[in-house]
Amino acid sequence: MVDIVVMRAVTSDNQAHADKVRAMLDEKNVIGLNIISSPGAGKTTLLERTIVDNPDLRFGVIEGDVFTGRDASRIEAAGAPSIQLNTEGACHLTANMIETVLPRLRLDELDFVVVENIGNLICPAAFALGEHRRVVLLSTPEGSDKVQKYPHAFNTADLVLVTKTDVAGAVGFELSIVLEDLKAVNPKVEPLLLSAVSGEGLDRWYGWLRSLRR
Amino acid sequence: MVDIVVMRAVTSDNQAHADKVRAMLDEKNVIGLNIISSPGAGKTTLLERTIVDNPDLRFGVIEGDVFTGRDASRIEAAGAPSIQLNTEGACHLTANMIETVLPRLRLDELDFVVVENIGNLICPAAFALGEHRRVVLLSTPEGSDKVQKYPHAFNTADLVLVTKTDVAGAVGFELSIVLEDLKAVNPKVEPLLLSAVSGEGLDRWYGWLRSLRR
Repeated sequence: MVDIVVMRAVTSDNQAHADKVRAMLDEKNVIGLNIISSPGAGKTTLLERTIVDNPDLRFGVIEGDVFTGRDASRIEAAGAPSIQLNTEGACHLTANMIETVLPRLRLDELDFVVVENIGNLICPAAFALGEHRRVVLLSTPEGSDKVQKYPHAFNTADLVLVTKTDVAGAVGFELSIVLEDLKAVNPKVEPLLLSAVSGEGLDRWYGWLRSLRR
Repeated sequence: MVDIVVMRAVTSDNQAHADKVRAMLDEKNVIGLNIISSPGAGKTTLLERTIVDNPDLRFGVIEGDVFTGRDASRIEAAGAPSIQLNTEGACHLTANMIETVLPRLRLDELDFVVVENIGNLICPAAFALGEHRRVVLLSTPEGSDKVQKYPHAFNTADLVLVTKTDVAGAVGFELSIVLEDLKAVNPKVEPLLLSAVSGEGLDRWYGWLRSLRR
């Protein structure tokens, strides 16, 4: 049984709560990641595979969801401790939520705390959660125009993962448009292309994770 | 050039504004549809094809987007008058926005006003826009668990369209899970399966539209 915590979003003083989360992570030399995407872009599937493929990296996961506890159960089954946060309808996580539940993970035993945000490309972008890196996923079936249409998610990203490359051809995905739009909204960031189904590109994602380790 | 209107969301008295929108539509015997889905589920592509395939149905479209005017340009190119609403970051449309821009469409010359809401499965569900019918799209690449995870969008739907059936096999979509979850959250509604690429199922969607005409 996973731990399901129901919390309301508190948006005031979000940065102060985010600073506290960051301090808690830094004290234990744990890297915090905030993963943002549309519903169904493949956040949970990528995390499952990442956990299974990297047994030497110790992940703890905070799963944000509007209502269910389904994703945390999937993460636990993949072998990592997980906490499910339910927002009861709110469209993003807030730092006070992370601050509240973080002590339930044993930070002494972790390299990474990964927060899987609510499936949404708009609201989560505006709320820091104390993360060290923000990772934004764009799945190929969503179409090539999404960087342009949801610039705030992509211009706050430290890493962009283009997921589901195994179906890129079938859905007519045009990478050149994404690259051009990224150059306009966030020129620092270069996307990694991957598929958690075919395994394409996962080595580069794992390499990026390892480069963050302290 | 499309008409781009930038508006802030006003959430107070939303129902009163929705009632006014409904009255404006009813006075002209125009059917209002509110289309909701995740980013990239295929709302605009389906509307483009619907407009082209049904020259005898007169559509006017209000395109909601966070920032760009891209979708309204696509709709105009498909042959229907369109207004682009930009919310400057807000994650849903509100009825006051529709009330404000509706007079820019010539309702005397229309059978349908279609509002394409912001790409988001959470926030738009909570705001009536004066529509006669709410249509929620779920694209097969988003995965089979989305009804369970975003119940408010699906339990307020009058019609659920399962889109991108042409790639259902490639992405491992399991219809039985969606049917079971829909039975739990919205037993009245039966989904129509379609693909705007292959054309599968479009006849049933067009039939549904025609059944609404006054």
